[in-house]
Amino acid sequence: DIVSNLQRVPPLLTDLYQFTMAYAYWRAGRHQEPAVFELFFRDNPFGGGFSIFAGLDDCLLFLQSFHFTDEDVDFLRSVLPPATDPAFFQFLRGLDCSGVTVRSVPEGTLVFARVPLMEVEGPLAVVQLLETSLLCLVNYASLVCSNAARFRLAAGPSRRLVEMGLRRAQGPDGGLTASRYTHVGGFDLTSNVQAGFLFGIPVAGTMAHSYVTSFTSLEEVYPRTLATVNGDPVDFISLTKVWLSHVSGLLEAEPGKIREDELAAFLSYAVSYPHNFLPVIDSYSVGCSGLLNFCAVALALCELGYQPVGVRLDSGDLCRQSVDVRRVFRLCRKHFSIPAFDSLIIMATNNISEQSMAELNKKNEIDVVGVGTHLVTCTKQPSLGCVYKLVEVRGRPRMKSSEDPEKSTVPGRKAVYRLVGADGHAFLDLVCLGAEASPQAGVPLSCFPLGCDGSVVTPAQVTCLFQEVFTKGQVRVVMTAPTFIY
Amino acid sequence: DIVSNLQRVPPLLTDLYQFTMAYAYWRAGRHQEPAVFELFFRDNPFGGGFSIFAGLDDCLLFLQSFHFTDEDVDFLRSVLPPATDPAFFQFLRGLDCSGVTVRSVPEGTLVFARVPLMEVEGPLAVVQLLETSLLCLVNYASLVCSNAARFRLAAGPSRRLVEMGLRRAQGPDGGLTASRYTHVGGFDLTSNVQAGFLFGIPVAGTMAHSYVTSFTSLEEVYPRTLATVNGDPVDFISLTKVWLSHVSGLLEAEPGKIREDELAAFLSYAVSYPHNFLPVIDSYSVGCSGLLNFCAVALALCELGYQPVGVRLDSGDLCRQSVDVRRVFRLCRKHFSIPAFDSLIIMATNNISEQSMAELNKKNEIDVVGVGTHLVTCTKQPSLGCVYKLVEVRGRPRMKSSEDPEKSTVPGRKAVYRLVGADGHAFLDLVCLGAEASPQAGVPLSCFPLGCDGSVVTPAQVTCLFQEVFTKGQVRVVMTAPTFIY
Repeated sequence: DIVSNLQRVPPLLTDLYQFTMAYAYWRAGRHQEPAVFELFFRDNPFGGGFSIFAGLDDCLLFLQSFHFTDEDVDFLRSVLPPATDPAFFQFLRGLDCSGVTVRSVPEGTLVFARVPLMEVEGPLAVVQLLETSLLCLVNYASLVCSNAARFRLAAGPSRRLVEMGLRRAQGPDGGLTASRYTHVGGFDLTSNVQAGFLFGIPVAGTMAHSYVTSFTSLEEVYPRTLATVNGDPVDFISLTKVWLSHVSGLLEAEPGKIREDELAAFLSYAVSYPHNFLPVIDSYSVGCSGLLNFCAVALALCELGYQPVGVRLDSGDLCRQSVDVRRVFRLCRKHFSIPAFDSLIIMATNNISEQSMAELNKKNEIDVVGVGTHLVTCTKQPSLGCVYKLVEVRGRPRMKSSEDPEKSTVPGRKAVYRLVGADGHAFLDLVCLGAEASPQAGVPLSCFPLGCDGSVVTPAQVTCLFQEVFTKGQVRVVMTAPTFIY
Repeated sequence: DIVSNLQRVPPLLTDLYQFTMAYAYWRAGRHQEPAVFELFFRDNPFGGGFSIFAGLDDCLLFLQSFHFTDEDVDFLRSVLPPATDPAFFQFLRGLDCSGVTVRSVPEGTLVFARVPLMEVEGPLAVVQLLETSLLCLVNYASLVCSNAARFRLAAGPSRRLVEMGLRRAQGPDGGLTASRYTHVGGFDLTSNVQAGFLFGIPVAGTMAHSYVTSFTSLEEVYPRTLATVNGDPVDFISLTKVWLSHVSGLLEAEPGKIREDELAAFLSYAVSYPHNFLPVIDSYSVGCSGLLNFCAVALALCELGYQPVGVRLDSGDLCRQSVDVRRVFRLCRKHFSIPAFDSLIIMATNNISEQSMAELNKKNEIDVVGVGTHLVTCTKQPSLGCVYKLVEVRGRPRMKSSEDPEKSTVPGRKAVYRLVGADGHAFLDLVCLGAEASPQAGVPLSCFPLGCDGSVVTPAQVTCLFQEVFTKGQVRVVMTAPTFIY
């Protein structure tokens, strides 16, 4: 389950300075002072206009299980300065988040730069210690979720999208986090089995080139028969060879270029998984070999009553090839009167970026797109700069000025409202001080967008974006199925 | 220990198609056929001329513990097609790497594109199942290690480098992997406590802006006395105030701009850790406040016999400020005759990239550089494209052609030799077929660099880069302290 997975985030996975600061607070007797930190980012990622907030579930599980073991404390004793009072380690040993309360926008919410996403309130030393871990859990989750949403927008609503970036992800957990939050951001499936296991995301996949190239001849195919859906075994190799000659004739192919080793691979897969036949057809040559071998095996499957699934293209001009492949499918369907060929899907993979995804909206016949590297590593901008800033201590607003004016912070606790117009569309996220009266539907309101003149707006509807999700150590809202709120 | 950490890489952290392929091999009775895969990348990262191979330790621990639990197998039963023969799950349940042998270049080796880094030999179904996990463990480790090496080259050999990217890393483990392998690549320290705990990397850190901005007045400072190194307690606040007036006079500062809340933060830290005083001095203004407060506290510490450590700059023009800060340190040293001020270090942090690191070689006084986002996420190129390609089955060389010629593979098992010239410098990595005779020192040799004409070279020394590191399920070479072989 998710909890056992998330127990991997130990409280030592943080920066050393959190402990030296916690010590100085403790030494000064300030560790119990009520403090409030705010989590936000300064710029939308990928040069875009929005982000998706994600990682809240992970944060809540982290907070819930936050405590230091004897082993943790022993290690801290060895790395903190020798001047550290031994009683501080006793204090750490007894620490948990029972004094911490978190208000947050819901998992999967569309959010914007400079608007607070999460407010963490509790004893100064504790909420200080949480900083790095919370940022680590929110930053990448939100980044990769936002990236997935951009791929989804580029792909349009109907194309099916498969995340398959595990091998290029930034570490094993980078891959797991990617699979989880790209699903929240709009991907349908993942290749990552562990993500299916832990998070219930549908998994997909059939074969790689190595499978195809591992075969050398038809001698390797076993079993050599396949039962019809009604049960009678048929010599599947001979049947496929007959279909291959029909297809070769129809397409005027050069029989010498059709690779028997590839055919052996396809046959072996088909006899193993006759209901799930979707081979990769470009291990050698799509036009001269892979497509012909696919059609032959698929036609044989159809004859025995099975529905072949489709093909995967993994190199070259994917759009052009998909058009060629579809044309052949239609030709076979018509010539051999096989309606099952109308339902074949074409899957495309090969270093797809957000831009190349958008280009797939040109003429093509691709039904499913698999995306790896650019999706999971967020090539265009591989980090989201969420920060965690102190805004209040003992009821007093705090701020940071800076040599860089844009790194200054806005002091005080905030409330965030999403204002919706008469047309049902949100038009403004309003940040107020927590102490200010909340805006009211139908009541005109002055607001001051950053860098613009003030203006008066009248919301038809007002939603408070913050929810109290963690109250004095207890998870309040259990997010079951995170949804991307478009 | 490392083993308990690495047990987090479960064998389900792989692509689904590895299982569908393994099933098809098993069904055809081919699962035990001896097969060889090769791991390599096609282009050096960051547009550079080299990479550092890393992640081998993780791979060996993964291979050593590779097996499926009942729970894993139950999950696979639920996601593989219903046609899957139940006996296959029994087969998976009994699987391990006892038939697998790995040859590899050593951890931390300088390596080049298209040269095999690792050769994995074993039963076809098993070595197929290992693909995604091994790639995931090598790709990011090698990428971030190479990135660290580039930062180290840009920084020069003497500047101390601190990795502090955890909060921006791609997931919790992305951060841990980054801390580990940037240390291999040439970083001295990390802020990541868990990385210190698991891998023994020295950890560093003192305070953040939130610590400074949490203070509002000198009333919050406690204890208000500090003992001299000989033991007598002194009113540390009064002492520092005297020094502050001296420093203000010397630097002709405007007393009204010196922030007492910042002074309170520095004092509180100094009384807690008098031997480890290194505050961040730009929470408000370096020149008008932070630097003066630092000097006052540091001079008071010196008077009591302590050595203050230095300052951290986290915004603005780091080079220019470091020069200003050093000038003030020298002025104080001279005017107050405090030799301890000669040893103060200046640490700089603030979104350092490889390029801005190189620019730090202009006039500046920075001793220590902390690097986060650009280091750990490898902004310039956030993924290394290592691939894992089948090169031999049952003694027969295998290759993949492709619609993209550069995605074709070189068939057959290889040997890799590093050729060293008479001057002691390596000049060529030679890839041969495994069956070919190895090159001999002093014997002229024809070689054919990719894309160039052949030429004849005479190595003074020949090193075989591959070592057998895993033999039939057993780790052969335990890599203790990985070193970056420049």
